[in-house]
Amino acid sequence: MSEVAFLECTRCGQRLSPEGARTVCPVDGGVLFARYHLRSLRERFRPESLAGREATLWRYREVLPEVTPVTLGEGLTPLIPSREFPNVWIKDEGLNPTGSFKARGVSVALSVAKSLGFKKFVMPSAGNAGSALAAYAAAAHVEAHIFMPEDVPQANRIECESYGAKVNLVRGLIGHCARLAGERRDQEGWFDLSTLKEPYRVEGKKTMGYELYEQLGGEMPDAIIFPTGGGVGLIGIAKAFEEMEQLDWIGSSRPRMIAVQSEGCAPLVKAWNQGQSTVEPWPEATTIAAGLRVPRPYGDYLVFNLLKRTQGLAVSVSEEEIRCAILDWARREGILPAPEGAASLAAYRKLRGRWLSENDRVVLFNTGTGLKYLDVLKPRFEPRPRHMGGIIQPY
Amino acid sequence: MSEVAFLECTRCGQRLSPEGARTVCPVDGGVLFARYHLRSLRERFRPESLAGREATLWRYREVLPEVTPVTLGEGLTPLIPSREFPNVWIKDEGLNPTGSFKARGVSVALSVAKSLGFKKFVMPSAGNAGSALAAYAAAAHVEAHIFMPEDVPQANRIECESYGAKVNLVRGLIGHCARLAGERRDQEGWFDLSTLKEPYRVEGKKTMGYELYEQLGGEMPDAIIFPTGGGVGLIGIAKAFEEMEQLDWIGSSRPRMIAVQSEGCAPLVKAWNQGQSTVEPWPEATTIAAGLRVPRPYGDYLVFNLLKRTQGLAVSVSEEEIRCAILDWARREGILPAPEGAASLAAYRKLRGRWLSENDRVVLFNTGTGLKYLDVLKPRFEPRPRHMGGIIQPY
Repeated sequence: MSEVAFLECTRCGQRLSPEGARTVCPVDGGVLFARYHLRSLRERFRPESLAGREATLWRYREVLPEVTPVTLGEGLTPLIPSREFPNVWIKDEGLNPTGSFKARGVSVALSVAKSLGFKKFVMPSAGNAGSALAAYAAAAHVEAHIFMPEDVPQANRIECESYGAKVNLVRGLIGHCARLAGERRDQEGWFDLSTLKEPYRVEGKKTMGYELYEQLGGEMPDAIIFPTGGGVGLIGIAKAFEEMEQLDWIGSSRPRMIAVQSEGCAPLVKAWNQGQSTVEPWPEATTIAAGLRVPRPYGDYLVFNLLKRTQGLAVSVSEEEIRCAILDWARREGILPAPEGAASLAAYRKLRGRWLSENDRVVLFNTGTGLKYLDVLKPRFEPRPRHMGGIIQPY
Repeated sequence: MSEVAFLECTRCGQRLSPEGARTVCPVDGGVLFARYHLRSLRERFRPESLAGREATLWRYREVLPEVTPVTLGEGLTPLIPSREFPNVWIKDEGLNPTGSFKARGVSVALSVAKSLGFKKFVMPSAGNAGSALAAYAAAAHVEAHIFMPEDVPQANRIECESYGAKVNLVRGLIGHCARLAGERRDQEGWFDLSTLKEPYRVEGKKTMGYELYEQLGGEMPDAIIFPTGGGVGLIGIAKAFEEMEQLDWIGSSRPRMIAVQSEGCAPLVKAWNQGQSTVEPWPEATTIAAGLRVPRPYGDYLVFNLLKRTQGLAVSVSEEEIRCAILDWARREGILPAPEGAASLAAYRKLRGRWLSENDRVVLFNTGTGLKYLDVLKPRFEPRPRHMGGIIQPY
């Protein structure tokens, strides 16, 4: 693994020492990115270096912080060619530990914070990030305190409790959870793993970008569709591409990046369409895609930067389009997606033949398994009762 | 991939042509094993051959049938060192597509049957095998008919329906489902993917054995603990070891294989302890580990053969031990197991310091994700109601 050279504020460019615990830029609150001596890695970190390495995100060790990994086998998820659309691939992040892409960020961030000596962690979560924290905290034998909206998917709550995390249910949305989590953090001295409030969840997420390169044999797609709540998935992938350019793996062109939100909570789409560079908080956010229910993403400016840099787009889909896409994906691809992931398919359908051509090579991200959202599907599949022939009685 | 040389009856040794659809031995109903020209593979299929190959079970292509794979990214699941016990690893099969090791067998068997032209499939299932068939059938754009006990875990049923499979609920156990499935198969000409009733689910499962070898760097463990319903997991792994010996990868010594069952359905343990070579059907089988609820495993003689060959053991654990092990594994390892998987931990605890020493290198198999069994955990984790302080009200 590599020494982190410095941390850089993504707003003002200030450089900070990577020593000790870091949150955000002390000057302007900007998100901090970890920077490595990439030029000096050019010779010894090549795509060919990867053959034979472990099938986890830690295979990209040269561009990850130098720590003892807390690992549950996260990363190197399948990239499956679509059975429905030619030139389309599905990146199935549901096969990560705890069933979502959140495992990547938490694995790396918790590994770093644990190496700094922290033993108690806190996070507000609308769902899967909390599950990931709970599992990795259990594996690392440290404490996890999670603040979740009271209407969080039941599967996430039970999962967190099963891993032994301390779950605090909050009447409100992720913003309320964040405020309460922050207060307790200050009182208790907990380490805060909130989205983009420390530099290393992005480092875990960025490995999705390296995997795309590796799994497509070095040929980049034309576009990437990613469901976007806090935006760390896209932000991480874009960071990977910048690094890969500096490593001389790729040139300066980029896949167009497409941020998908639900019409029930689309602050990024609204601001993008209005040409604004920061979001206004989305009032009364509601969507079955719990992970997209982020009314005011902290990294909004990073998302807008990468959409501009890649000539990308922010687009919203309706709740009904998401619901249909869940079952269509299951029935046509054999992948039961989280509602967030299904939003990628819904967006592709919307853009195909218009903003995207049928020849464009497109990667759709399924960010999580649908197994945690069976409550959403259950009403459609109630078995007929026995007296109506719904259950076979053997003779 | 490799041409299958012939199919061999595991009872009478008769050799059959691999052409066309095969079920069991026409003479004595014995399970058929696929055999390859392993000696001729010795030179070109070495452990070193695997570096840089795809991160799925199809990386072992030389010892798999020559077909176009129907793949969802199955196999090469993490092998995680235990945080609780030195010298113990957990093989986390819950990170397979559809969340269980059943994906392996179905991927290979469906690929073969599809290549033979079959378009309609049938299977009786107590849970996860049905889920896997439903998903792979969806991916392959073929029909799946699944017969399940009416009290199958709800998650499995909803999952199968979501993938578009035709689910038939049966008042009874897996045996009743099998009988009804067999009748409809004969009427309709469906292809039967029942456990051990065709040769290729074993081929998928055996890749777990190759993975152990590869992930442990060629050093085999001293023992393997595997939850055992139909027994195909152990049977497959044992077959892999025989093949690896013929390939000159390993010698003739074997890890001791330990078959775990629940006290609520332990026909193999009972027969083993009584020195019998076939099981008597277990009456009134009940266990929360749905996959272990197999009162009369068809491959009983194969399980007994491999236990004898490896100086292994069949052992049962109580329902209470399984329930405790689920949460202990979650809280100490960060892995939320299926009840079947938790039975491995329960068995290890029982055998450690007695039949297994603390220095023995042991692999425990978690056969599936616990996410499908949250109903089992839910009653333990009901949140306190709001008026009792269970939900925080932000000011």
